[in-house]
Amino acid sequence: MQFVCRTIILASLMLLLAGCDSRPSAAPQADRHRLTQFSIINALMLGHYDGFASVAELRRYGNFGLGACDRLDGEFILLDDKAYQAKSDGTIVELSQAAKIPFAVVAAFDKINELPCPQLNSLEELETRLDGQFENKELFHAIRVEAKLASIQFRSVPAQEPPFRPLAEVAKQQVVHTQKNIAGTLIGFRTPKWADSLTVPGYHWHFLSADRKLGGHVLNCELASGSIAYQQYGSWLVKLPDTLGTTGKDISVDLRREVEQVERSRGGSQ
Amino acid sequence: MQFVCRTIILASLMLLLAGCDSRPSAAPQADRHRLTQFSIINALMLGHYDGFASVAELRRYGNFGLGACDRLDGEFILLDDKAYQAKSDGTIVELSQAAKIPFAVVAAFDKINELPCPQLNSLEELETRLDGQFENKELFHAIRVEAKLASIQFRSVPAQEPPFRPLAEVAKQQVVHTQKNIAGTLIGFRTPKWADSLTVPGYHWHFLSADRKLGGHVLNCELASGSIAYQQYGSWLVKLPDTLGTTGKDISVDLRREVEQVERSRGGSQ
Repeated sequence: MQFVCRTIILASLMLLLAGCDSRPSAAPQADRHRLTQFSIINALMLGHYDGFASVAELRRYGNFGLGACDRLDGEFILLDDKAYQAKSDGTIVELSQAAKIPFAVVAAFDKINELPCPQLNSLEELETRLDGQFENKELFHAIRVEAKLASIQFRSVPAQEPPFRPLAEVAKQQVVHTQKNIAGTLIGFRTPKWADSLTVPGYHWHFLSADRKLGGHVLNCELASGSIAYQQYGSWLVKLPDTLGTTGKDISVDLRREVEQVERSRGGSQ
Repeated sequence: MQFVCRTIILASLMLLLAGCDSRPSAAPQADRHRLTQFSIINALMLGHYDGFASVAELRRYGNFGLGACDRLDGEFILLDDKAYQAKSDGTIVELSQAAKIPFAVVAAFDKINELPCPQLNSLEELETRLDGQFENKELFHAIRVEAKLASIQFRSVPAQEPPFRPLAEVAKQQVVHTQKNIAGTLIGFRTPKWADSLTVPGYHWHFLSADRKLGGHVLNCELASGSIAYQQYGSWLVKLPDTLGTTGKDISVDLRREVEQVERSRGGSQ
């Protein structure tokens, strides 16, 4: 009996090991070197504002990210595995697991590389500093800056109603907020130039204040001090909405100039 | 004793189920809706011919695919989970699990949709027929055609030695083979137009004969009869070689015209 019992236990354990190794798992977060993008920038630019991926799904792909909220109602932020909506008045609301997102970039952020961050006069200075550090600029990078900011300009956009206008038009309605002497986190990604046509080119930054009360899409900032952590990604997963291409608009058009204007326009006021 | 034995077996089985469900697995083939691309077309075009992903790794992402072989020594084919090299003389060699691949597109192919395939006079006719069937042409498709071919023209390329010349030059050395009345499989992918700059645009076909003796990159064919199976993919994973960008060449240049020429050139002879 003991022999039978031992044999069965051994067989069960072997099955356990074999089963776990060969059976496809549904857990995609295994790949720490993968950055995941939900939708493509041209779809967002042309009015695909309806959320299609839930916060719960996004969190399966990472703990760190940025994007847009459902119906473009604010900017999306994922930080330390919590999801936030930066509303057009610049205030922050925590999002439920069921909230749907129309566009996002998400990564498992492990803080692999660290850099000191001296006083810097602009976002451009920060980007130049990072460009000088990254070993391979043809791969993707996520960047987290814990900063004391002398000043920061960030924007958000108000919710839209269908029929959705293109983002280039909606962005004219952006509300720009300026804060002085504020602590918080810059959540950033750098995309290599070859992927320009599918996502926000170059750097893309969102901001979340240390007290989790203010935030948005960063237009510019002056850093008093801070610390930078970054990570390189050699895999890029693009997850598409089923509705892609069902609006009758040609999403293969070259909108790079419009994207630049929408994402980097550092004018505006409030 | 029997009770203890039963309890242990039950506990082992529960562990088996729990362990498999919660443990992040390294098996990425879980996502049946994902198409995986190794490298980007511009890297291949500019001479990144050194294999970087093994056949064993490719097979973790699918059982069906096509691409190039290490040092451009022939065309790569993955069919029914077996990997093949179509040499420049048109003959087939089965690849080892350790063989490295510089560029490939791979998918888990489940034969989800099926179509009859009437007599068709050209590859273009086949593509027009497929275009008329696909519900959403902004997503990716894999296509498998089991065919009796009245004729087929396929090419392959000879191995290269460093320093590697651009593919547009190497392709001038392509060897084109014509076969009449041959049975085999067409392995195909269709890329939506918005992804043009990162991969082979539109349709891309490789051929493997039914006896697994001949094959290559398809330039044209006449189908006597056959059956078509296809599958739609809403996720696209791009896996990059670490060496991307280390050759000093700008891989973000627009090479779409050159890619078209290399991949679709239906001239040549042998």
